[in-house]
Amino acid sequence: MPVYNAPTDDVMFLLNDVFHIERHNNVAGFGDATPDVVEAMLVEAGKLCSEVLTPLNRTGDIEGCTRHEDGRVTTPTGFKEAYCQLVAGGWVGLSCPAEYGGQGLPGTLTVIINEFLASANLAFSMYSGLVQGAVAAILTHGNDELKRKFLPKMIEGVWAGTMNLTEPQCGTDLGLLRTKAVKQPDGSYKITGTKIFISGGEQDLTENIIHLVLARIEGAPEGTKGISLFIVPKVMVNDDGTLGARNGVACGSIEHKMGIHGNATCVMNYDNATGYLIGQENRGLAAMFVMMNEARLGVGVQGLALSEVAYQNAVIYAKERLQGRSLTGPKFPDKPADPIIVHPDVRRTLLSIRAFNEAARALVIQTALYGDLSHRSQDAKERQHADDMMGLLTPVVKGVLTDLGFANAVNAQQLYGGHGYISEWGMEQFVRDARIPMIYEGANGIQALDLVGRKLPKDAGRAVMAFFAEVQGFINAHRADEAMKPIVEPLDASLGHLQAATMWFMNNALKAPDNAGAGAADYMHMFGLVALGLMWGRIVLAVNEKLAAGEAGGALNAQALRNKLIVARFFGEKMLPETAAQLKRIEAGAGSVMEMGMEGF
Amino acid sequence: MPVYNAPTDDVMFLLNDVFHIERHNNVAGFGDATPDVVEAMLVEAGKLCSEVLTPLNRTGDIEGCTRHEDGRVTTPTGFKEAYCQLVAGGWVGLSCPAEYGGQGLPGTLTVIINEFLASANLAFSMYSGLVQGAVAAILTHGNDELKRKFLPKMIEGVWAGTMNLTEPQCGTDLGLLRTKAVKQPDGSYKITGTKIFISGGEQDLTENIIHLVLARIEGAPEGTKGISLFIVPKVMVNDDGTLGARNGVACGSIEHKMGIHGNATCVMNYDNATGYLIGQENRGLAAMFVMMNEARLGVGVQGLALSEVAYQNAVIYAKERLQGRSLTGPKFPDKPADPIIVHPDVRRTLLSIRAFNEAARALVIQTALYGDLSHRSQDAKERQHADDMMGLLTPVVKGVLTDLGFANAVNAQQLYGGHGYISEWGMEQFVRDARIPMIYEGANGIQALDLVGRKLPKDAGRAVMAFFAEVQGFINAHRADEAMKPIVEPLDASLGHLQAATMWFMNNALKAPDNAGAGAADYMHMFGLVALGLMWGRIVLAVNEKLAAGEAGGALNAQALRNKLIVARFFGEKMLPETAAQLKRIEAGAGSVMEMGMEGF
Repeated sequence: MPVYNAPTDDVMFLLNDVFHIERHNNVAGFGDATPDVVEAMLVEAGKLCSEVLTPLNRTGDIEGCTRHEDGRVTTPTGFKEAYCQLVAGGWVGLSCPAEYGGQGLPGTLTVIINEFLASANLAFSMYSGLVQGAVAAILTHGNDELKRKFLPKMIEGVWAGTMNLTEPQCGTDLGLLRTKAVKQPDGSYKITGTKIFISGGEQDLTENIIHLVLARIEGAPEGTKGISLFIVPKVMVNDDGTLGARNGVACGSIEHKMGIHGNATCVMNYDNATGYLIGQENRGLAAMFVMMNEARLGVGVQGLALSEVAYQNAVIYAKERLQGRSLTGPKFPDKPADPIIVHPDVRRTLLSIRAFNEAARALVIQTALYGDLSHRSQDAKERQHADDMMGLLTPVVKGVLTDLGFANAVNAQQLYGGHGYISEWGMEQFVRDARIPMIYEGANGIQALDLVGRKLPKDAGRAVMAFFAEVQGFINAHRADEAMKPIVEPLDASLGHLQAATMWFMNNALKAPDNAGAGAADYMHMFGLVALGLMWGRIVLAVNEKLAAGEAGGALNAQALRNKLIVARFFGEKMLPETAAQLKRIEAGAGSVMEMGMEGF
Repeated sequence: MPVYNAPTDDVMFLLNDVFHIERHNNVAGFGDATPDVVEAMLVEAGKLCSEVLTPLNRTGDIEGCTRHEDGRVTTPTGFKEAYCQLVAGGWVGLSCPAEYGGQGLPGTLTVIINEFLASANLAFSMYSGLVQGAVAAILTHGNDELKRKFLPKMIEGVWAGTMNLTEPQCGTDLGLLRTKAVKQPDGSYKITGTKIFISGGEQDLTENIIHLVLARIEGAPEGTKGISLFIVPKVMVNDDGTLGARNGVACGSIEHKMGIHGNATCVMNYDNATGYLIGQENRGLAAMFVMMNEARLGVGVQGLALSEVAYQNAVIYAKERLQGRSLTGPKFPDKPADPIIVHPDVRRTLLSIRAFNEAARALVIQTALYGDLSHRSQDAKERQHADDMMGLLTPVVKGVLTDLGFANAVNAQQLYGGHGYISEWGMEQFVRDARIPMIYEGANGIQALDLVGRKLPKDAGRAVMAFFAEVQGFINAHRADEAMKPIVEPLDASLGHLQAATMWFMNNALKAPDNAGAGAADYMHMFGLVALGLMWGRIVLAVNEKLAAGEAGGALNAQALRNKLIVARFFGEKMLPETAAQLKRIEAGAGSVMEMGMEGF
């Protein structure tokens, strides 16, 4: 059975020594998040994950969810009790405004804890993860009445939230959406239509479920300019806050799928269900994008989370499994064979996962910090910059962390040999579970297009220029430092490739947009490598500072700090070189991609 | 429900126009394989695959195999009837010697048909696939009595074969093997021990199962030099060929696993089972390697097979699914949206799969032809060269085709968006099934080590030098041809990278073998890209010759031929550039890989 230990030390090192979050103590919520408080919380969350959620992960996979004839859905044994613990711990509304019952702590902390939850039990973690996005959408675009009516219970965790976009004929292309809304004399709407792939659309964990639903108001324009966003509660809420009658929404079926069996993926039938408009008519996409951006960051975190737990278990196996001898002679001559961790290819595999995990965690925290600053900073310029960076990095985090997170789960599974393919070892579940983050909340091809087609040109390239300046500034500041070379030199080369690719798009894709489309996936991954490389740069800097100061204490001991230098060098030597090949593929353009007629496929 | 159409036209083009197999008509069996005969056979096999085996693929996945309390194993509904059809068609022993009831046709044909079978139903195809390897081992190392007793029924297909190497403590490292054999006065042996991960170890398809079992004879040396190979029939065979009593071997349990649910993966308990020695005492590994090399080529083919069927279905979906508009304006303005195949990223994905499939099929045929020539050629020099190349290419085919085959199945699944994750669409089964070929018959890390550690230095590098000379010769011969440039130029660069990596190993890995271990996986993939690039070179040459000659007829029409030029260019532009990054990673050596202490992981 797989185990999991939350990487609290690594997180504390990142928060305190790499990102120095005490710098933000003047920002709302940050002052309360003192190192002691944060550490205690992380330890507590980690305990819940290791002791309660991890053991439920395999039973959830085996048992799955059950839909009963009356439309009720039962989650796997133990999920309800565990959810109660999650709610009781106040974990759901940790970063939500105190005004509505939350703790008002930085959103960054919630993002960090969501990594732990998803490592322990991805299927379970999705039930609470989506509430946070729904809360954000209502907070940003809902009126006061809706906020008062729905937010407190959602933030408490006793009501869940879902996001309803997809319909059978309408996935990426929301303009094709058909679910309709008819305005009622009391200002509410009647919603009718079918939504598919609704995670947690029905469950037995919470007393109510608040569905956020995209629909088209009668007479609205076609396409994406005629879409509105509605709150549709599963159970009507009376004015005094008590629950009323069932609303006209029901789960029609649940999907059989590759993984995340513990999470009910529902077909939701809306039949004259009462809904409440969030924000303005026909401006629903803007409101839904608040939820979607939260969710995209959250999904990126899931990629990291699966990579982390797969790594932890692969390390245990690689140290225990005796097979063959080291190429340089037996390392454990008293045993029948050496543990497979002596083999370079096994170490290469482990290090490539770890070099990703540690930098990806930094990138997630960095992005979440931008998210916090974009909402909470009192400095308008800082808010704008943070918003720029958050927008730029979100598709990168979603696309790159989930692609590589899945690849890492596969690579970790590979170290188990045949045992990796056998269910009871748990590695194959990580692979099946890690597959979905690449798909939902916008398939990764869409993330790449969002980056190249929207985020790069936005505001005349302000965000991307700021990012390049930041990386270049870091390189320039540390170029002369011998101890920084193992990461700064390859990062410099990769930044050059990324800038060349950006320039190539500017010169070749404005007139022929297929050139951007054909290179978008490579560009996103190249961007990801440079962003992760910058994170390694910042980590190495912090490590060197701490080692030079000879500081005792801190989250990591000297050996752990020195190990980070090895992993950083591995990243520079073995992972950053990929950007050269990516650039070459981008510069080859769309010619061979677009030439063949459709019938030739 | 997924569909499958065997790529018979592509195979005929490869056999006739690229490899000109009529050149080998003087080799045993080849003279009978006239183009008409071959085409008729492929069409017939393709029909069996599309109509019988493809529909059973999903039911096999859902139903799986059942082990009963008495140790019997039931395969999924329909498998037994389909297996009867396979046997009745004479497909199992197609390439086996006529002396024992086979048809004596080239082994290459069996390899080709095995691709079709594995595309249609991997789990099913494994039952017959393993017989062929067992037959090869008995043919090569068994004595006449064993051959007469066992081969005819195996070749007919009414008895199956299995391969029993792995034990709980012994996977890659066969020296740890414990199953023991005790010699009996009649010359037979009593075999006792437990084998795990035995594909088709028990089933209800055939009246007998011939297990090939590695065991250690009492008093044999420790390690790999004390291992012998035995035939252990499930049911004893009387001297008159009739079946006798059950032997002391039984299936103790079957595994729950990620995929290939239709194939029973068995724990086999040997309890004083009667076994017959194949070859010499303590020389069992050499005999088993005959089976293993057959199996490794076969497993490589499985990677291609899954990639092919995933591609075919992804193309259908990409042409049918309407979502979004082309970046260059609507292509089907009368429809609510364009089919997603208009999007460059979708085409890029499809082309990267296809550029692999078509070259991988050529490489498989090339390798299988070497296999045939190594056994059947009357020219000793040709036999040696063919044997060299077969040995060199086998780990490449196994490792590269299964790694990329899996990646392609994942990429094809990705095009389905959320539907790709839902079981009923079938794409997620392809991914789960495609995962095992990377693991069994020697995990791919072992293939890489086999290539770098054994095949490169063998006979002072004779094989690899011959391969380099062949690629370089091809490049030199066609460098000046403008029409060949799109493939010859990038191939030239990649060959340079491969040679540089080889040289780097010679200079750096002899004294420090970890440098080879750390770079082995990259080297294997680089080798694979160059080998696939050479295949594209040969395909482009054949296409240009046929187009220039204006030949009507042939397996492919002019448009299909021209499409191959586009796909070849895509391969050169988008896939070969990877070798530069691979070289860089190899040249970074083992430093950062080996530096960290074991406790640091």
